[in-house]
Amino acid sequence: MNISKPEGASERSAERLVHVPLEGRAYDILIGPGLIGRAGGEITSRLKGRRAAIVTDEHVGAHYLEALMDSLQTDGIEAVSLSLPAGEKTKSLEHLSTVCDMVLTARIERNDAVIALGGGVIGDLAGFAAGIVRRGVRFVQIPTTLLAQVDSSVGGKTGINTRHGKNLLGVFHQPDLVLADSAALDSLSEREFRAGYAEVAKYGLIDKPDFFGWLEKNWKKVFEGGPERIEAIAVSCQAKADVVVEDERETGRRALLNLGHTFGHALEAATQYDSSRLVHGEGVAIGMVLAHQFSARLNLASPDDAKRVEAHLREVGLPTTMGEIPGELPPTEKLLDAIAQDKKVKGGKLTFILTHGVGQSFIADDVPPSEVLSFLEEKRPK
Amino acid sequence: MNISKPEGASERSAERLVHVPLEGRAYDILIGPGLIGRAGGEITSRLKGRRAAIVTDEHVGAHYLEALMDSLQTDGIEAVSLSLPAGEKTKSLEHLSTVCDMVLTARIERNDAVIALGGGVIGDLAGFAAGIVRRGVRFVQIPTTLLAQVDSSVGGKTGINTRHGKNLLGVFHQPDLVLADSAALDSLSEREFRAGYAEVAKYGLIDKPDFFGWLEKNWKKVFEGGPERIEAIAVSCQAKADVVVEDERETGRRALLNLGHTFGHALEAATQYDSSRLVHGEGVAIGMVLAHQFSARLNLASPDDAKRVEAHLREVGLPTTMGEIPGELPPTEKLLDAIAQDKKVKGGKLTFILTHGVGQSFIADDVPPSEVLSFLEEKRPK
Ligand SMILES: NC(=O)c1ccc[n+]([C@@H]2O[C@H](COP(=O)([O-])OP(=O)(O)OC[C@H]3O[C@@H](n4cnc5c(N)ncnc54)[C@H](O)[C@@H]3O)[C@@H](O)[C@H]2O)c1
Ligand SMILES: NC(=O)c1ccc[n+]([C@@H]2O[C@H](COP(=O)([O-])OP(=O)(O)OC[C@H]3O[C@@H](n4cnc5c(N)ncnc54)[C@H](O)[C@@H]3O)[C@@H](O)[C@H]2O)c1
Ligand SMILES: [Zn+2]
Ligand SMILES: [Zn+2]
Repeated sequence: MNISKPEGASERSAERLVHVPLEGRAYDILIGPGLIGRAGGEITSRLKGRRAAIVTDEHVGAHYLEALMDSLQTDGIEAVSLSLPAGEKTKSLEHLSTVCDMVLTARIERNDAVIALGGGVIGDLAGFAAGIVRRGVRFVQIPTTLLAQVDSSVGGKTGINTRHGKNLLGVFHQPDLVLADSAALDSLSEREFRAGYAEVAKYGLIDKPDFFGWLEKNWKKVFEGGPERIEAIAVSCQAKADVVVEDERETGRRALLNLGHTFGHALEAATQYDSSRLVHGEGVAIGMVLAHQFSARLNLASPDDAKRVEAHLREVGLPTTMGEIPGELPPTEKLLDAIAQDKKVKGGKLTFILTHGVGQSFIADDVPPSEVLSFLEEKRPK
Repeated sequence: MNISKPEGASERSAERLVHVPLEGRAYDILIGPGLIGRAGGEITSRLKGRRAAIVTDEHVGAHYLEALMDSLQTDGIEAVSLSLPAGEKTKSLEHLSTVCDMVLTARIERNDAVIALGGGVIGDLAGFAAGIVRRGVRFVQIPTTLLAQVDSSVGGKTGINTRHGKNLLGVFHQPDLVLADSAALDSLSEREFRAGYAEVAKYGLIDKPDFFGWLEKNWKKVFEGGPERIEAIAVSCQAKADVVVEDERETGRRALLNLGHTFGHALEAATQYDSSRLVHGEGVAIGMVLAHQFSARLNLASPDDAKRVEAHLREVGLPTTMGEIPGELPPTEKLLDAIAQDKKVKGGKLTFILTHGVGQSFIADDVPPSEVLSFLEEKRPK
């Protein structure tokens, strides 16, 4: 891990490359400013096909679609595009059907690409389509939120929501290339940027204490842009890639990526996924603080670690307590139900990602529900 | 390959097992009479989950659903079922959506199973659903047509049709168990049985000349049932499994399985997939004869081989010439267009499975379209 400032002054030299060495489907993640405007060249130097179908949403499309289309055209890629409404509701079977129809109409063959230009919503939806059209065509991720750059665009999970819950239909379909344009984050709202930052901090808390320490010092520069932002994204992508290569199908170690997510998902469910109340990264921020506090309560970690985590996330402007969520929360039993319904249930015990301290997380699969209940009871707003 | 009569007189001893040694996802194909009535035991001895969602069609369901449900119940598997209209139209996104909803409502988790009870239509549809619910749950194939037993249930291809063409959306999702109940074929129409037989003969023609010779002698017993039927299915499954293990994602050798299919698909398209005029296996039968005749015309094989193939397929009651297809065929140029649109096009040349004789097929990727055109012109009904 290299978390020093990159050397060299030119924009281009600040670029990072993370290679994901999956057997037979290895791919590159490029991170740096201006990648959208150079997408054509990066794609043609790696993929055989000369056709592309771009999926984006209305916010992102307004900012970056033209630049992307221009770049593809310059490099001889024939591209069509589809701009969908922004928001989680777009991850539906109806929109999947629309995307597949558009990809087939564009006569995308196995070596041609579906390109996702947007946040995690567009990446998950377009990736699913790329995974099922002709049983799999090439897929290029151009993530435009911090969350998508450090998390959803890496690892090959794709999916849509159904009335039964989130991400219940999908496939594993690895991208063939990820272009994380760090400058594209400049148009992202402060709130969305912060939410993505929770996932960046997560990688430090899982098993990179030095990186967490570096973030404590450098987070402002990460928010402002420049080399520190690129560095933070690169370290995060590398961390995710390492776990994915080790455990592509999430049967073991990949579960560590759920640090903060068991509590976080319960809070998202408790707020009916209403993003005006809570967005995913905010739920994760609160969830990570709770995971550290809960670990301290179980005498697994020092309470000082929980305080350190809370202090940093609060400093960057993330919520760290349930009390900060606007509106009423359901009864504690209902929160626990949401946790138990989460996929991580085994028999009567609950599976949690707990920690021995900053950067020392582990999978605990024998957490008694009663302990969680009394802990949540204590922590919820009175 | 063992194509001698199985020894032992009892029904059970006539059973065959073909193991498909895919790394990490190896599975068994059982072939024999009465397997539907013993499905529960075969499933519980291999899979962990104790829930199942059965997908069937109205014809098959009327015959076998009750026996299957009874067997599952006896072995402690909690099962629900969904019976869909029979026919190719059922391979649609709408029905996929219905199946996924039913599977999620039944709270099928990763270790639980979706069970396909039916022909290739149900297998392709239910397999697709099993491949995408929670990014993949267990999948059991109980194929009830000869075509499904020897072809579609083995190999992991799943899919549905769209307005753009057949099988354009799908995933590779290997089954965890295939139960080919040879006695269930007794209720199949003679025409459907014959259509499946074309695929059985195909394995001989690809690279098993002895098996083709055995079929020439024993085909009547295969049609009647008994050990020869089981044997023919087992040899076919083994042949398909061998190819699949070698080339799971169809990048090379698996293309040999398309012997007869390039011409066959063109004829299916030419008859608008109207099964009253032509069913898939009939198209394959005509296509295999054409492939042998075309190979002879290109001086690759002896015309005697083409005659031998035609004689056998005609003897079992399959069509072997375009003239036997009821109704008008489109102009030859249109047939060629359908061939060129088939996925097997590379640049200007066409990819065909040709042959040096019975059991000596090979992939030819440099067939000039003009040769095909004049050949078809000569062979089509005047
Ligand atoms: N596949 C995975 O492994 C994985 C991992 C984590 C999360 N996810 C999924 O990701 C989704 C959330 O992703 P997200 O947080 O990126 O949400 P999102 O895609 O909805 O984007 C958030 C908002 O930001 C806007 N936006 C995006 N980029 C912008 C830019 N550069 N400038 C201005 N506005 C921009 C979008 O239009 C949207 O309104 C969820 O559906 C979640 O399930 C998937
Ligand atoms: N996945 C693959 O690798 C693969 C390979 C070849 C074909 N296929 C697909 O398979 C499909 C064709 O399969 P099929 O020929 O089995 O068609 P099918 O599933 O439509 O079955 C044919 C007819 O027979 C009826 N039937 C089935 N079993 C019966 C039984 N035991 N008794 C009485 N009636 C019965 C069905 O209800 C239907 O009416 C096509 O969609 C084709 O694309 C897939
Ligand atoms: Zn997350
Ligand atoms: Zn076939």
